[in-house]
Amino acid sequence: MKELINEINQFNTDRGWGRNHDARNLAISISLEANELLECFQWQSAEDSIAKDKQAIIDEMADVYIYLLQLSDVLGEDLVHAAREKMKKNAIKYPIQVRT
Amino acid sequence: MKELINEINQFNTDRGWGRNHDARNLAISISLEANELLECFQWQSAEDSIAKDKQAIIDEMADVYIYLLQLSDVLGEDLVHAAREKMKKNAIKYPIQVRT
Amino acid sequence: MKELINEINQFNTDRGWGRNHDARNLAISISLEANELLECFQWQSAEDSIAKDKQAIIDEMADVYIYLLQLSDVLGEDLVHAAREKMKKNAIKYPIQVRT
Amino acid sequence: MKELINEINQFNTDRGWGRNHDARNLAISISLEANELLECFQWQSAEDSIAKDKQAIIDEMADVYIYLLQLSDVLGEDLVHAAREKMKKNAIKYPIQVRT
Repeated sequence: MKELINEINQFNTDRGWGRNHDARNLAISISLEANELLECFQWQSAEDSIAKDKQAIIDEMADVYIYLLQLSDVLGEDLVHAAREKMKKNAIKYPIQVRT
Repeated sequence: MKELINEINQFNTDRGWGRNHDARNLAISISLEANELLECFQWQSAEDSIAKDKQAIIDEMADVYIYLLQLSDVLGEDLVHAAREKMKKNAIKYPIQVRT
Repeated sequence: MKELINEINQFNTDRGWGRNHDARNLAISISLEANELLECFQWQSAEDSIAKDKQAIIDEMADVYIYLLQLSDVLGEDLVHAAREKMKKNAIKYPIQVRT
Repeated sequence: MKELINEINQFNTDRGWGRNHDARNLAISISLEANELLECFQWQSAEDSIAKDKQAIIDEMADVYIYLLQLSDVLGEDLVHAAREKMKKNAIKYPIQVRT
């Protein structure tokens, strides 16, 4: 994952991008890409969307991930570590219900 | 990453969740979490947001990632692979400009 | 405003649209259009965005409004009335601070 | 509608808000409120959402509209006029198909 982040940073550096890539602008871009992903499912079911547009869905999903990696890099926080910590909080917030 | 997906799936199974987790509903949730992330930056600069709410930002970033992993799992597509393939397309779409 | 809603409904009927326009699908479209609006401001300041893309901004703003009117129609709720009621709640939630 | 905009502006002035309400920040807030609206429909059908949360749906719809009115005011553009102009463009983009 660190390797992928380096590739993304190199990609941006090669194009003179990245100066405006602060956390706020990255959060905006994550919302924009998330909605381009959602647009693949507009007016139709999951099944129909995947049947017609699977590659577009994968590409938009990738775009969300690419911006998410950049944000994690700006924050100096590993995504997998952040996810594990968040799941610990979720486990407390939503305890397993034992049926008796 | 595969291990983390298994943990997420187990988390959902333990709570009887996941039946509604089709690709369309996951795409909706990715947009929702992306906007909870963006909300951390509402009305204030990146610097102020990070100074005040860094842990909340990391937690919301993690939530986007957790849903993104579930979507990648539903689609049977590895996120890192998808990102590398998308970057190849981006490299063609946005060629490096050589100044002469 | 009621007249405008009738025009939108006629527009949809003329094209055989509208069968899928339930409240959930309209809410998805409102988020999508809101993000197309936001995209006009990606990577640049409000001033630069307006200088370059004012008509696009107005068009995307209009798209959000058109879907919002359809949702209000589906819910049988007047938008202006809903806004006034919401502002009463906001006034209680955020009381005016009197400095002494 | 102009009267409602005046009420919103007065509401903001009374609270010392509004200095940061440029078009970009308003567009961010429109996306945020659109997603709070969409959240009412997360994991459930339109019917179930309306049955359980109709007032919340109306309130979030109102919040989108309140920010949309502020943006239209900042841009000096009437929402109804913008919607009518946009529908003319849509009518050209999506002509009525005559079946023969």
